[in-house]
Amino acid sequence: MRKRNNKNGFSLETIKRLSLYLRNLKRLKEQDVDVISSDKLTELLNLTPEQFRKDLSYFGGFGKRGVGYNVEKLTEEIENILGVNKEWAIAIVGVGKLGSALLGFEGFSKFNLKIKYAFDSDKNKIGKTRSGVKIESIESMKRTIKSNNIRIALISTPLDVAQEITHKLVDSGIKSILNFAPMVLNVPKDVLVSNVDMASELESLIFFAKQKKINKV
Amino acid sequence: MRKRNNKNGFSLETIKRLSLYLRNLKRLKEQDVDVISSDKLTELLNLTPEQFRKDLSYFGGFGKRGVGYNVEKLTEEIENILGVNKEWAIAIVGVGKLGSALLGFEGFSKFNLKIKYAFDSDKNKIGKTRSGVKIESIESMKRTIKSNNIRIALISTPLDVAQEITHKLVDSGIKSILNFAPMVLNVPKDVLVSNVDMASELESLIFFAKQKKINKV
Repeated sequence: MRKRNNKNGFSLETIKRLSLYLRNLKRLKEQDVDVISSDKLTELLNLTPEQFRKDLSYFGGFGKRGVGYNVEKLTEEIENILGVNKEWAIAIVGVGKLGSALLGFEGFSKFNLKIKYAFDSDKNKIGKTRSGVKIESIESMKRTIKSNNIRIALISTPLDVAQEITHKLVDSGIKSILNFAPMVLNVPKDVLVSNVDMASELESLIFFAKQKKINKV
Repeated sequence: MRKRNNKNGFSLETIKRLSLYLRNLKRLKEQDVDVISSDKLTELLNLTPEQFRKDLSYFGGFGKRGVGYNVEKLTEEIENILGVNKEWAIAIVGVGKLGSALLGFEGFSKFNLKIKYAFDSDKNKIGKTRSGVKIESIESMKRTIKSNNIRIALISTPLDVAQEITHKLVDSGIKSILNFAPMVLNVPKDVLVSNVDMASELESLIFFAKQKKINKV
């Protein structure tokens, strides 16, 4: 993911930090904390209050300096910025082993994400239901995604069709892709791809563990 | 992860691309392909032959231009560079819900990674066995990691102890950390942290899906 900022000034890192603040706020709420200073909120995350205020400033000011932040209100504000306070219907392409596991994965619901549409090229799968979701053909993908205004898709296809599927998804209006195929997807500037590639992560870790003396890259 | 290169000239991205080449080579081997050109090898990954040759050049030259690469030999070479051709014993700290799931996760074996050591601060867990691994105390962590020369650790502790655990791990000789705690870990330059933070990824995707018109950050 490139680090350059967009025209609004904030980067993807800003969004990821908002997600971290949100998790910490939820933890504080569970501990019945009502008001929190930016110092305390950021301390545990190894971030600075300055960073926190800067991150929030892109989306309007919240709270007053010195008074602290209302935990519940700030939680709502950040949920609102991120858009996680409403349910998002998402599509998955590729219902193989991984795709089936993702269809059954309950963790998405925590983020108000619900896989409601599934597509596969295998004629034996089309028309069948997996985890309550009916599998449609790749041919009907564009129509279904457009007419239901779907913005987020998961790609769990084999490597050799992932780019072609990506083109079709972008063409159908998809703006965010969670990519499980082990490759670099080409997308236009206004589409975000997030790669879930456990293999690369693990192999990088092994590579570093192997080195005697090396500076981090 | 910072993008700057280390003193050897290659970046973490180089290592991640090696991992992608490796996966593609394994796929080719399954298809009984013996020799492959750099064009064909990189095409599917959306990478260039120039990039591929540059990535390999950091570790010595392999294959001859024009002749193509022997799939089996190149697979071995890259496995050797990455260090995935031998088993790595790894440690996990924090045997809660997530930690227990990771202990039972069979996917690590694909990368020759085996969780052999587990640590937790909960007296009710210490001494018990989870997925064949005996849980030890945090107090005995340094000694166990040092004496067994462990280099890779997973952190699945609560947020509020993750940094302290990280210090202890680094002090014990750990060089690679797979971090599941939703926070930024401070580590010395020669230690690699890979963050597995599905929540941030998903919330970033939602944020982008929400935007009407926005340039990628």
